[in-house]
Amino acid sequence: MIQVAINGYGTIGKRVADAVSAQPDMEVLGVAKTRPNFEAETAVEKGYPLYAAIEDRLDQFDEAGIEVAGTVDELVEAADIVVDACPSGIGADNKAMYEEYDTPALFQGGEDADVGEVSFNARANYDEAGDADYVRVVSCNTTGLSRLVAPLEEAYGIEKVRATLVRRGGDPGQTGRGPINDILPNPVTLPSHHGPDVNTIFPDLNIDTLGMKVPATLMHTHSINVELESRPDAAEVRELLESQSRTFVVPDHMDIDGAGKLKEYAMDRGRPRADIWENCIWGASITMEDNDLYLFQAIHQESDVVPENVDAIRAVLGTKSAEESVETTNDAMGMGL
Amino acid sequence: MIQVAINGYGTIGKRVADAVSAQPDMEVLGVAKTRPNFEAETAVEKGYPLYAAIEDRLDQFDEAGIEVAGTVDELVEAADIVVDACPSGIGADNKAMYEEYDTPALFQGGEDADVGEVSFNARANYDEAGDADYVRVVSCNTTGLSRLVAPLEEAYGIEKVRATLVRRGGDPGQTGRGPINDILPNPVTLPSHHGPDVNTIFPDLNIDTLGMKVPATLMHTHSINVELESRPDAAEVRELLESQSRTFVVPDHMDIDGAGKLKEYAMDRGRPRADIWENCIWGASITMEDNDLYLFQAIHQESDVVPENVDAIRAVLGTKSAEESVETTNDAMGMGL
Amino acid sequence: MIQVAINGYGTIGKRVADAVSAQPDMEVLGVAKTRPNFEAETAVEKGYPLYAAIEDRLDQFDEAGIEVAGTVDELVEAADIVVDACPSGIGADNKAMYEEYDTPALFQGGEDADVGEVSFNARANYDEAGDADYVRVVSCNTTGLSRLVAPLEEAYGIEKVRATLVRRGGDPGQTGRGPINDILPNPVTLPSHHGPDVNTIFPDLNIDTLGMKVPATLMHTHSINVELESRPDAAEVRELLESQSRTFVVPDHMDIDGAGKLKEYAMDRGRPRADIWENCIWGASITMEDNDLYLFQAIHQESDVVPENVDAIRAVLGTKSAEESVETTNDAMGMGL
Amino acid sequence: MIQVAINGYGTIGKRVADAVSAQPDMEVLGVAKTRPNFEAETAVEKGYPLYAAIEDRLDQFDEAGIEVAGTVDELVEAADIVVDACPSGIGADNKAMYEEYDTPALFQGGEDADVGEVSFNARANYDEAGDADYVRVVSCNTTGLSRLVAPLEEAYGIEKVRATLVRRGGDPGQTGRGPINDILPNPVTLPSHHGPDVNTIFPDLNIDTLGMKVPATLMHTHSINVELESRPDAAEVRELLESQSRTFVVPDHMDIDGAGKLKEYAMDRGRPRADIWENCIWGASITMEDNDLYLFQAIHQESDVVPENVDAIRAVLGTKSAEESVETTNDAMGMGL
Repeated sequence: MIQVAINGYGTIGKRVADAVSAQPDMEVLGVAKTRPNFEAETAVEKGYPLYAAIEDRLDQFDEAGIEVAGTVDELVEAADIVVDACPSGIGADNKAMYEEYDTPALFQGGEDADVGEVSFNARANYDEAGDADYVRVVSCNTTGLSRLVAPLEEAYGIEKVRATLVRRGGDPGQTGRGPINDILPNPVTLPSHHGPDVNTIFPDLNIDTLGMKVPATLMHTHSINVELESRPDAAEVRELLESQSRTFVVPDHMDIDGAGKLKEYAMDRGRPRADIWENCIWGASITMEDNDLYLFQAIHQESDVVPENVDAIRAVLGTKSAEESVETTNDAMGMGL
Repeated sequence: MIQVAINGYGTIGKRVADAVSAQPDMEVLGVAKTRPNFEAETAVEKGYPLYAAIEDRLDQFDEAGIEVAGTVDELVEAADIVVDACPSGIGADNKAMYEEYDTPALFQGGEDADVGEVSFNARANYDEAGDADYVRVVSCNTTGLSRLVAPLEEAYGIEKVRATLVRRGGDPGQTGRGPINDILPNPVTLPSHHGPDVNTIFPDLNIDTLGMKVPATLMHTHSINVELESRPDAAEVRELLESQSRTFVVPDHMDIDGAGKLKEYAMDRGRPRADIWENCIWGASITMEDNDLYLFQAIHQESDVVPENVDAIRAVLGTKSAEESVETTNDAMGMGL
Repeated sequence: MIQVAINGYGTIGKRVADAVSAQPDMEVLGVAKTRPNFEAETAVEKGYPLYAAIEDRLDQFDEAGIEVAGTVDELVEAADIVVDACPSGIGADNKAMYEEYDTPALFQGGEDADVGEVSFNARANYDEAGDADYVRVVSCNTTGLSRLVAPLEEAYGIEKVRATLVRRGGDPGQTGRGPINDILPNPVTLPSHHGPDVNTIFPDLNIDTLGMKVPATLMHTHSINVELESRPDAAEVRELLESQSRTFVVPDHMDIDGAGKLKEYAMDRGRPRADIWENCIWGASITMEDNDLYLFQAIHQESDVVPENVDAIRAVLGTKSAEESVETTNDAMGMGL
Repeated sequence: MIQVAINGYGTIGKRVADAVSAQPDMEVLGVAKTRPNFEAETAVEKGYPLYAAIEDRLDQFDEAGIEVAGTVDELVEAADIVVDACPSGIGADNKAMYEEYDTPALFQGGEDADVGEVSFNARANYDEAGDADYVRVVSCNTTGLSRLVAPLEEAYGIEKVRATLVRRGGDPGQTGRGPINDILPNPVTLPSHHGPDVNTIFPDLNIDTLGMKVPATLMHTHSINVELESRPDAAEVRELLESQSRTFVVPDHMDIDGAGKLKEYAMDRGRPRADIWENCIWGASITMEDNDLYLFQAIHQESDVVPENVDAIRAVLGTKSAEESVETTNDAMGMGL
């Protein structure tokens, strides 16, 4: 059993812990958190040994009546691998600690690309992580774009991708974030960082991305144009996308018009935390005009990278092939809406 | 086993179906729905026999490839009791059908009070439903107010309740509802219907309510003033409210500032659909000024009436006492955050 | 003086009335409205003779104490031209009345294109309205796209336009409209109607548009890609757009990040109703990649068609050339941020 | 002519400048701002001499091409009085500078009460500012409550005020503020600071206030209960409130359901920046139950303190009586919707 440490137990960390815990070949050695709150409480309830990420704050956990197993250093030393799910920028700061204990580590997409030797997406470049000790799992949006680009590139060749990413302003619990009533070009300069980030996975891809921010919390939504090298019809593209294991092509008759109903559907299907790990591509939107493919896809910012983190663990440790890993992860999590 | 029919499989109906299905003394005989969509699909997947609420639309289910067990009449005839969870106003229209088949029925709080012989809240007046065939489970807000009023009335006596109900504009999947960026006095005339509705449960209570509507989807939030007949201190009131089985007094150290984090906590605790069946009362807000009690509570509009519906089934059929029913319901659902 | 009747005194109609009233060669003969409300009151206060759009409701105006000058038929008969600013679809119904009195009429972009002989944009096809009695001023989004396409087509030639229109869910006062917390592909099928609508102005243009709807009320925001036939640099394109009379290229140093601050700027500049008649193009977003031009522009849905309506009056009546009309309109309104 | 300096030219400062400029007995000597942006540009355009609030940043204004008249010290020295409209907390820091130059000053309600010798509301305690050099004009919400309390106290006597303040999350241009989709008890502890702040104006008033924060930007909305000492009927209260010069009792037939339509009405009436200086009290909401008065009022957070600042200038300098000042201010600004 692979002993996994998770440093940072917030939006991503707690989901990775649950996903790791569901795998047949892994277990959660412990999770580290900077301060006591409701998430720390539930970690303990779930039986995840809880470590203090900041030694000086052991007292605070004590006062809140939350039992702590030790400090993050001890956890890192004992683990086979660390998944760093700390806020953007903190991961890079933590790297020295992982190196000190010689523990391989995964970082999240909020870190600069050079924090890892490789940027990772299971569908696109699983094998490249095999020789690396430090790997960056790309962000939710880049993951969503990569899962779309990979099959299209293989099947039809891609001239150019142009994508407008209409991003949620904050997560449902992030009450301090806006905007309340605005549509922001964000960043206002072009391209947004997403295009170059996709290039860390597909170095030769011609891609321009534009980012916006709007007052919604549930999911990002991408308006996508892909100029293909060949001219499949829309039905053919749709079948290709339906055949992928981490895409959900929304059927027309389901009467799902946006992220609200997508999440509702996920809840009806019993998904933990209403998570949607798959790219949600509206089937009715898949359209070809000459060699221009257009479509809309929604991306659940809190969870689509979770199965990718699980796969990256095996990729770095070399315990399974890409195909085996993805299948194992998907089965254990219940992938497939 | 009590054979329960559920007519209307939307926001409330699907939750009642799952809750009934979890009870040791009940089973879901079938659910009726007017049209095929993602909810109809998941009903079938969960093994709930699906009945067409409108005979003429059997074809539509066929076309969508969704298997139907029959029409709603057959379901009503065969059931021990019907939970009507149709949109407001439709329940009253359905009553003639329930009478025709001599099947007792529960209605939801969106119906006028006179649809049932009794308006019901398990904490407040369980026994009154014993002699009735048609019972109305009061709405989410009235349920939330009743759960608060009952223990306060018993422990301290109540001079007067004044409540401002800041209501969510629509549910997460209701994309056609607003307002987008406004705070609406709603209704602008006073009192709102909630006060009189609470009087269907507590006929002698002196209560004035004011309603507002705001651009949020997760929960309603009540700003409550209760003039008590005696003067307990705030700590005593807090303990009283903590001791109730369907209230969750939010601990100060949990760092939960609103509905977003409450739902996050529910998800972390593994609640199905992130449901919060309990009144969520901020512990830090419980305050006494002279004999004026003040507090904030959040009410999950989609789910707080679900355990009440389960109890009302037993109350109408006379199979358990109030205490037994509430305990059974709570155990089966996993009440208690 | 051109005697202008305005049928429909809501969002567009009241703005057109004020703009007409500001022109040296026009006056408001009267405005017609279906029911009394705050807008009817202010019409009377401003000295616009008020006509009842529905004869049966004359009583309602009476009861509200609002003086009515007559019914809409009388107004239409006496006018040189009617600007129909009724809700979408009603304009087409009104056409028979305009024909009956032989009064030329302008319709708004919510009507089907065939309501008029010509679809109109002052920058693009002013002269085409010269021979027409019934002209449709295209919608806010199509107006915004046309003002952008016209100079780019003239200066560089256009291979293809691809635009994602992130639209506000409702206007500030439309409290019944959503979504509250969602990002909707809208329509989910492609292309949205905007592309074909731009083709009513530019028949040969190759354009694909995608529509979305988000919880904001202030302005639409477009994410634009134009594949040009030549390769100007971004600075050159910027100068071209700055030179247009109905575009406002947002200077980088103004620290304007979205529609909220744009409207704030309009208010600071004393704009009536905080209206922004110009396309607002973020200067910092104007970018060339090969022959792909990218930019963001915000469009004020309530007002950008107002100067176009004023010009269309002169175009239909043949009283001024395009250049003269645009200059007159702009001077009278105070165009130019 | 009273020479007025305005230190801080943001939301409040720019409105005070325009209001001062409209008065027959005052003029704007200059405005001070920390950095160049669109507001600085419009200040210069309007002919307000612009001073740099931070000497080190003179360069930044230069680079942006914005002419600066000097630094804030020079402005303060030359002025008869300073209106400090800097962000909360900065005002207190500035006080030493005002004392150094012996210039009387007004502060805004975001400062602690002790920044001034007196907290000020024109309707309630104009004369108390007569002996003071440093006066604090209370915040938008406290101003709104004071204007309501004063006439009710005089006419009927007040037993107790209980108010729930449902506050907008941020102003229209404040894109960094949330919440996006939540209703926050804010502060979660009671009472909110508003009650004690009202007591700086009415020391003996019994008042409890509760605060909330919601995803709207246009106005705050108050749900008000006032237990009166006598029992007027609702019509009498309504007349009393209609007779006040800075309240607008929304007529029932105007079909105004919230802040969106209120602002629309203000725009239709030609109000600069769509400002609403008056308390907006829904007439239909004014209700008496025994001696409990209930009503809803909306408060425009950006502008209701503006006329109060103007009056406070005269109150401190002793140039007019309360009655004269209020009348002069109202006439010059065009008070009265």
